[in-house]
Amino acid sequence: MSSLKQQFTVSFRYDVHFTTSLFDPSNRLFADVISSNQETELNQTIKKVLFVLDKGLIDHHPELFDEVQLYSKKYSDTFEVISQPVLIPGGETAKNNPEYTELILSATHKNGIDRHSYVVVVGGGSVIDTAGYAAAIAHRGIRLIRVPTTVLAQNDAAIGVKNGINAFGKKNFLGTFVPPFAVINDSEFLKTLSERDWRSGISEAVKVALLKDPAFFDFIEQHSTALSQRDMAAMQHLIHRCAQLHLEHILNSGDPFESGSSRPLDFGHWAAHKLEQLTGFELRHGEAVAIGLALDVTYSYLNGNIKESEWNRILNVLQQCGFSIFVPELYSKPDDPMDKGSLLHGLEEFREHLGGRLTIMLLGDIGKGIEVHTVDTGLYQKAIHLLEKKEKELV
Amino acid sequence: MSSLKQQFTVSFRYDVHFTTSLFDPSNRLFADVISSNQETELNQTIKKVLFVLDKGLIDHHPELFDEVQLYSKKYSDTFEVISQPVLIPGGETAKNNPEYTELILSATHKNGIDRHSYVVVVGGGSVIDTAGYAAAIAHRGIRLIRVPTTVLAQNDAAIGVKNGINAFGKKNFLGTFVPPFAVINDSEFLKTLSERDWRSGISEAVKVALLKDPAFFDFIEQHSTALSQRDMAAMQHLIHRCAQLHLEHILNSGDPFESGSSRPLDFGHWAAHKLEQLTGFELRHGEAVAIGLALDVTYSYLNGNIKESEWNRILNVLQQCGFSIFVPELYSKPDDPMDKGSLLHGLEEFREHLGGRLTIMLLGDIGKGIEVHTVDTGLYQKAIHLLEKKEKELV
Repeated sequence: MSSLKQQFTVSFRYDVHFTTSLFDPSNRLFADVISSNQETELNQTIKKVLFVLDKGLIDHHPELFDEVQLYSKKYSDTFEVISQPVLIPGGETAKNNPEYTELILSATHKNGIDRHSYVVVVGGGSVIDTAGYAAAIAHRGIRLIRVPTTVLAQNDAAIGVKNGINAFGKKNFLGTFVPPFAVINDSEFLKTLSERDWRSGISEAVKVALLKDPAFFDFIEQHSTALSQRDMAAMQHLIHRCAQLHLEHILNSGDPFESGSSRPLDFGHWAAHKLEQLTGFELRHGEAVAIGLALDVTYSYLNGNIKESEWNRILNVLQQCGFSIFVPELYSKPDDPMDKGSLLHGLEEFREHLGGRLTIMLLGDIGKGIEVHTVDTGLYQKAIHLLEKKEKELV
Repeated sequence: MSSLKQQFTVSFRYDVHFTTSLFDPSNRLFADVISSNQETELNQTIKKVLFVLDKGLIDHHPELFDEVQLYSKKYSDTFEVISQPVLIPGGETAKNNPEYTELILSATHKNGIDRHSYVVVVGGGSVIDTAGYAAAIAHRGIRLIRVPTTVLAQNDAAIGVKNGINAFGKKNFLGTFVPPFAVINDSEFLKTLSERDWRSGISEAVKVALLKDPAFFDFIEQHSTALSQRDMAAMQHLIHRCAQLHLEHILNSGDPFESGSSRPLDFGHWAAHKLEQLTGFELRHGEAVAIGLALDVTYSYLNGNIKESEWNRILNVLQQCGFSIFVPELYSKPDDPMDKGSLLHGLEEFREHLGGRLTIMLLGDIGKGIEVHTVDTGLYQKAIHLLEKKEKELV
């Protein structure tokens, strides 16, 4: 018997850019990103770029691909755009139907998109997750530029190193850890968002503020009305700071590809994922996260981890931003946590996705999370009652 | 406009073990590998292990899974085996039909295999590639233990950081770069290999010797008859040295996940991949590699890079190991390299998989490769004629 030992490290880098009017020919950013690949001069060819576009976005920006083609004419020495973009429906539909992944893979095959070409995905979080997954597995990884167009995608979904689609009724069952080539946030896209899509992403900012940055929580609290009334400057600050905290977390976690059992940023997410499923994806991810946060914050209060005043502050912020903090699905099969129809079965599904011991994040203080490995299901029932009461008080 | 910069490194490590009688209860290796995960004590639970088995192997070892179950009884404090293994046909069939990937994914779903569980794949290179792909995308990555059972898998396919299946008629179109948790080579499995499977893997050893280690080439030359006559000690040395050279290459390449355009170990592989396809996978990978090597070695001779004596030595070694160095498919559509049915179209397919410029490896000397970016297709025609002549001389 003998053994050979292998050990190596791989470096990853990507930039997250903030701009406006990305495809205005006077804005060089996109062309600069494409040519920032630091290849040898001999390898500098005109790059092929395949666009994957969110159909929901195109409804509001029917001119978008014409603009892209016009833009590419000016920078034709750098890249050429495949004339047929791939259109994918927005929302969870993209992730629930493998045919959309297939559609992107087929376009990469037909157009000879290789590892030195680019897939550019423009849209919401689900379309970005789907295109990211397809780009990660085609040729073992094509360069991906994410152009997120919703608040949630700009401050959270598009920032990280994950991609994925749903399978077997499990969220993100298929996916990989692959950092993007670049992320470009264009705040112009936020102007045409529906009320729900404008609001949805705020909950991820509340979450990361609660875990990491009390001053950021204060900012959201002070601007909750402005944010709900579509104040662009406040939203731009929220997105920038939230993105920054996410990037810092990935950098400092020591485990960017999650080999451990801990998912310290997934505060409120065990319930959020399950509520999305229990409502048949009627709830958007950000809306479900707001309720998941409200639930785990309330549990943290009932558990004695945070004060009543803090509990009230947090729920008030969520409500002032316009979020519901209760849906009837919270009460799904409360007597049997092992029933797949039960909200509490979400704890087991959450554990299974990472493996190892159950590890969920609760709140220790504003700005500080604490991990626990067991929960009191009776206390969760109490928390759900409190949320229902609080929601009714507002109405 | 502003930008946030992200940069981090991820460490990967895995061991390649050499043993015999892996599932003999007195051999602790497998149980030790399972418990080598260095998790915190609290996270040490009894691990779930899903076996994926090569049907071709089971034909020769019908008792294998019974042995595995008996073995697991002795180490039941460390792991439990899912009672239903996944059976996958050997050879390219596994990689050509997405249903087999689906079968493994479905078993991980049904049995609650999570990121801290294990998929153990026992079989040839294609089954290992398929199981590795499924394990890499389920839950964004389940731990994979490879137990390769052919020469090719033990010295090459199972050693590296790649996995993948075929799609759209393109080899390895879908896949990822994900190192295994561990590799375990058991030489017992080699005893029941067919002649073809015994021989096939030798060509990858010839390749790596030609590129990196003249002394290893001398060893193969001196033992070519012994190797073709199934001398186990010679084969064990060949596998160990070949695996070691592969691991060193991954470590020292500076680009383990192939972000560049160069694939320095893929000497002879542009033609090998194409010949597998042109023969409808009648040729095994190792057999195709032998012909691909013979072709690029002959081209290197005609090109003036190596001497006639060296050319002869190399072809003799391949022939003495029992390889054919010619198949009629080498002549496929010689007049039109842009026709997909042409052997020379393999150059473009090879380029596309990596992207960027065409970069192929030729021989500069025994022990030294040289990269080129253009080829002379007329010289390739000449090389093919020479191979046909040389093959006929032997008969």
